Amino acid sequence: MAIVLGPNQYGKAETRVVRIYRDAAQHQIRDLNVSTVLRGDFAAAHTHGDQANVLPTDTQKNTCFAYASKAGVAEIEAYALSLARHFADDIEPVSQARIEVEEYAWERATVGGAEHPHTFVRSGQDVRTTAVTVAGRGPAQQAWVVSGLRDLVVLKSTGSEFAGFLTDRYTTLPETHDRVLATSLTARWRYADPAEPAAWDAAYAQVRQILLEQFAVVHSLALQQTLYEMGRAVLTARPDVAEIRLSAPNKHHFLADLAPFGLRNPGEVFYAADRPYGLIQAVAQRDDAPEPGPAWDSAAVFG
Amino acid sequence: MAIVLGPNQYGKAETRVVRIYRDAAQHQIRDLNVSTVLRGDFAAAHTHGDQANVLPTDTQKNTCFAYASKAGVAEIEAYALSLARHFADDIEPVSQARIEVEEYAWERATVGGAEHPHTFVRSGQDVRTTAVTVAGRGPAQQAWVVSGLRDLVVLKSTGSEFAGFLTDRYTTLPETHDRVLATSLTARWRYADPAEPAAWDAAYAQVRQILLEQFAVVHSLALQQTLYEMGRAVLTARPDVAEIRLSAPNKHHFLADLAPFGLRNPGEVFYAADRPYGLIQAVAQRDDAPEPGPAWDSAAVFG
Amino acid sequence: MAIVLGPNQYGKAETRVVRIYRDAAQHQIRDLNVSTVLRGDFAAAHTHGDQANVLPTDTQKNTCFAYASKAGVAEIEAYALSLARHFADDIEPVSQARIEVEEYAWERATVGGAEHPHTFVRSGQDVRTTAVTVAGRGPAQQAWVVSGLRDLVVLKSTGSEFAGFLTDRYTTLPETHDRVLATSLTARWRYADPAEPAAWDAAYAQVRQILLEQFAVVHSLALQQTLYEMGRAVLTARPDVAEIRLSAPNKHHFLADLAPFGLRNPGEVFYAADRPYGLIQAVAQRDDAPEPGPAWDSAAVFG
Amino acid sequence: MAIVLGPNQYGKAETRVVRIYRDAAQHQIRDLNVSTVLRGDFAAAHTHGDQANVLPTDTQKNTCFAYASKAGVAEIEAYALSLARHFADDIEPVSQARIEVEEYAWERATVGGAEHPHTFVRSGQDVRTTAVTVAGRGPAQQAWVVSGLRDLVVLKSTGSEFAGFLTDRYTTLPETHDRVLATSLTARWRYADPAEPAAWDAAYAQVRQILLEQFAVVHSLALQQTLYEMGRAVLTARPDVAEIRLSAPNKHHFLADLAPFGLRNPGEVFYAADRPYGLIQAVAQRDDAPEPGPAWDSAAVFG
Repeated sequence: MAIVLGPNQYGKAETRVVRIYRDAAQHQIRDLNVSTVLRGDFAAAHTHGDQANVLPTDTQKNTCFAYASKAGVAEIEAYALSLARHFADDIEPVSQARIEVEEYAWERATVGGAEHPHTFVRSGQDVRTTAVTVAGRGPAQQAWVVSGLRDLVVLKSTGSEFAGFLTDRYTTLPETHDRVLATSLTARWRYADPAEPAAWDAAYAQVRQILLEQFAVVHSLALQQTLYEMGRAVLTARPDVAEIRLSAPNKHHFLADLAPFGLRNPGEVFYAADRPYGLIQAVAQRDDAPEPGPAWDSAAVFG
Repeated sequence: MAIVLGPNQYGKAETRVVRIYRDAAQHQIRDLNVSTVLRGDFAAAHTHGDQANVLPTDTQKNTCFAYASKAGVAEIEAYALSLARHFADDIEPVSQARIEVEEYAWERATVGGAEHPHTFVRSGQDVRTTAVTVAGRGPAQQAWVVSGLRDLVVLKSTGSEFAGFLTDRYTTLPETHDRVLATSLTARWRYADPAEPAAWDAAYAQVRQILLEQFAVVHSLALQQTLYEMGRAVLTARPDVAEIRLSAPNKHHFLADLAPFGLRNPGEVFYAADRPYGLIQAVAQRDDAPEPGPAWDSAAVFG
Repeated sequence: MAIVLGPNQYGKAETRVVRIYRDAAQHQIRDLNVSTVLRGDFAAAHTHGDQANVLPTDTQKNTCFAYASKAGVAEIEAYALSLARHFADDIEPVSQARIEVEEYAWERATVGGAEHPHTFVRSGQDVRTTAVTVAGRGPAQQAWVVSGLRDLVVLKSTGSEFAGFLTDRYTTLPETHDRVLATSLTARWRYADPAEPAAWDAAYAQVRQILLEQFAVVHSLALQQTLYEMGRAVLTARPDVAEIRLSAPNKHHFLADLAPFGLRNPGEVFYAADRPYGLIQAVAQRDDAPEPGPAWDSAAVFG
Repeated sequence: MAIVLGPNQYGKAETRVVRIYRDAAQHQIRDLNVSTVLRGDFAAAHTHGDQANVLPTDTQKNTCFAYASKAGVAEIEAYALSLARHFADDIEPVSQARIEVEEYAWERATVGGAEHPHTFVRSGQDVRTTAVTVAGRGPAQQAWVVSGLRDLVVLKSTGSEFAGFLTDRYTTLPETHDRVLATSLTARWRYADPAEPAAWDAAYAQVRQILLEQFAVVHSLALQQTLYEMGRAVLTARPDVAEIRLSAPNKHHFLADLAPFGLRNPGEVFYAADRPYGLIQAVAQRDDAPEPGPAWDSAAVFG
């Protein structure tokens, strides 16, 4: 029996890159949180402290800024692909580079009824995400693109039931045929073929809208059902999406008990609880989806 | 010399009250975080552990829910006033009641181009606030209303300078005539006379819009100047506002140094820093404003 | 009626200064979060954007680092006093300087039973704080020192009651004669005379220990009583303390209801709730305490 | 091509269970954050909203409390195993149950030099963790136990270098032979055979101490090297550990530039940065380690 080095990776996490486009009278802004991960031949750094193969994380940070200028940030997926390809192509010991980006949206401020050319209000809704992985170099180079969103907080004040569930000796929950359903949605979808570049911004907007619409129109018998219908609708609308993963905390809203005070509460006054929360997770996929490879191996995989 | 009990107060903090209005086909939602504070004759609880004058914080929580039903939450200021008046009127040992409310805004989800009747997306922009204080009972009862917002994150990509400042031996900052200016604004304004009820929702919307517009249109020589112009514009537009307090972290965006890589950076690529940050605070007020009394004594005053 | 500039202040918040002492074989570390606030003649910056009197917050940050070298960080109160005196003495438009410091404690790592000379583990218990204000210059200069701690999380598993309280129509809470009492304590005490320098580290350690001991030994009929006994004990032991302010969220631990499962729960299994929480605040002071002046006017006073 | 349901799971996240042992004069406390995850035959809930196989997350929460009484919380791994076995054994549609537990440590308060019998101070250092998975029932039932810690914040003020690294055109970082090395360590180790019950508390204490000692005594040429030596030392000392995963943000401490102020800075004054940070991750394992199975499939695997 021997002790050996297993999988390993390193990078620079959470570089806050802001790119302003000021060529036109209407400025544009892309506000990013970028993490880089390198995988490859770094054994000697672990076993002997030999850094000869280790590109400093400080350099990776510099590269994030340089590419925001050189490659630009027209769309986060394109920016991440250019960064990942650079590390895979140009840094000898790197066999695989992963770039994860979060984007914070800004809206234009409205002044006197018109959009102001250079003033923005942070939108504060969901954070848009992407995770791009590039492996190898030359003709054999492969790439994977996962796009997504997190923290899309949605609520429906009716149209949700929870009944007919399995019970055991620890079950005290009553059935309900009308409850508040609320969640803070995380969704991540994997593109089948990143070589066929999507219009990434448009794809994000479409998927987001489908998720919202399904949440609204599906009469929910279970959060599981709502999630699956969301996923199915995205795959139906987007043939370029191979798989979508959905994670949804059930943000419980409990009916306040007003009976002791002689008051009725017909679904009007709720207590919004923090913890614990249900956590429902599901994947919808095509049965002929290509293998995911390292698409889902995150920057924090060992954390 | 004797050791004595000084000021004291107690209450229930952060009760998460959600009120749904479902009378019409279009549901409405008010999503609140409510804190109650009681001041009065509670010395015996401190000196002898005698609770005879102490209304439990659990009861205060119950009351928040009951009043969301009884009084409703048409506007947070009105809801807070009704709660505060109840405690001041009906709980014998209470000489002063303060209610602080945060409100999280929700937008209607759009489905097929139309607003969905019962599905909402949390807006995620600024949190609306109010702090209401009621003292005494009967004809001598007084009330103070402070309304506000926090976490309104705004950025302008040009139209901001910082030059001509005082320097000393520790100054290394260069002057700039074009920088990114960004902040996460907190504003709180005190109404001159809460007996003359404002249309609270409309007042909030108007003040918020004025703050945004001033941030946009003032060519900023200093964040101090921007704040003061914001405050002045609010007081000019709203004769019922006696005073406005503004607090603005300067969310620094530093130009990335790309020169080592042979790249120009004409105000395009920035590093958004977390800490430290400048913190600029100013009050604009009428010179004939009535005394604030306990209007600014917060629920966390001793914290 | 005119609109005028009211109180205002500005500074650099949350500069993370770490000072290592490496003169001896046993290194020492002081790990600080420093905020500076300047008050004075800054009207023109607000009304005309004229910065001539404004020392940049970037300079204030530089000064924090320079003084960690020049003045050192033997004790945070002494460091803060030297910084505040510098701003008050040397920066012409400044009439009042306030320095707030948080300190994160580190313990020495133990290796082979002995303390390691240069390896530390962050202690993670309470954060030590100070807030120093210096006004004026020359012989008339005055100073105020408030020291404190926050986030001291304590719990007693018995020795706490809550009964005999005031009830009204919204009261449903039963009385209890044995409950879990837990809080995350914030305490701040004002020294009567900062010209008579305390042994600041020793004073902090003593006050902290008194607070802990009183929490333990007082049989609690109310959290109010516990707080007041804490305060009284500190003032009794430390003649140099004029006043102490205590703020304590009641971190509720609710007995889990196991009866539906045929299990008894004699004070053994609890649900630890996040929100809402009771918030109890009290001041203990000497009846001949000197006026506090600006001692309690915080860096975030308008926030 | 068809759209199908992929992997899915659900459970109750973050139930805050506190267990007091009060049989002896010296009370004991175990303070837990428990998440349950069920995997199995839940397809109909997704595709048809049919809950017949779905044990409510509310029931899972109840079970966490009931087992804290019935099974007790002598050690978190044992508690988690009993919960996981219950779900796998007794709930028909469940094929796999996973229980994740975080434990917050408390120290006894010292009063008059002696440990107080029922007063505790939260230790605030690392959070202890476990993740237990049980699959199947009857003789074929299998179990996996991963134990760990997170947020162990350590710093060494010397004994760390970073030099000889790979450079490219984006590299500006100078080499250093004496720097501050600090991290907030996450470590998780997988036991080879949970059927052979470890003394879990003792194992945790031993692994934690080894991690600390290696951090201290290894002269670090790279954080990678430090991590690997930590892992190797754990595997050497504990034959029952098959694998250990380490994740370490490099909490950068940058030397403050005091040269503009005519001050030297021989490794004494540092700026502690928040973001970005290096993130170094590595696995040390036995070359004959059994397959991990679902040991690493977390409660948030799709999040």
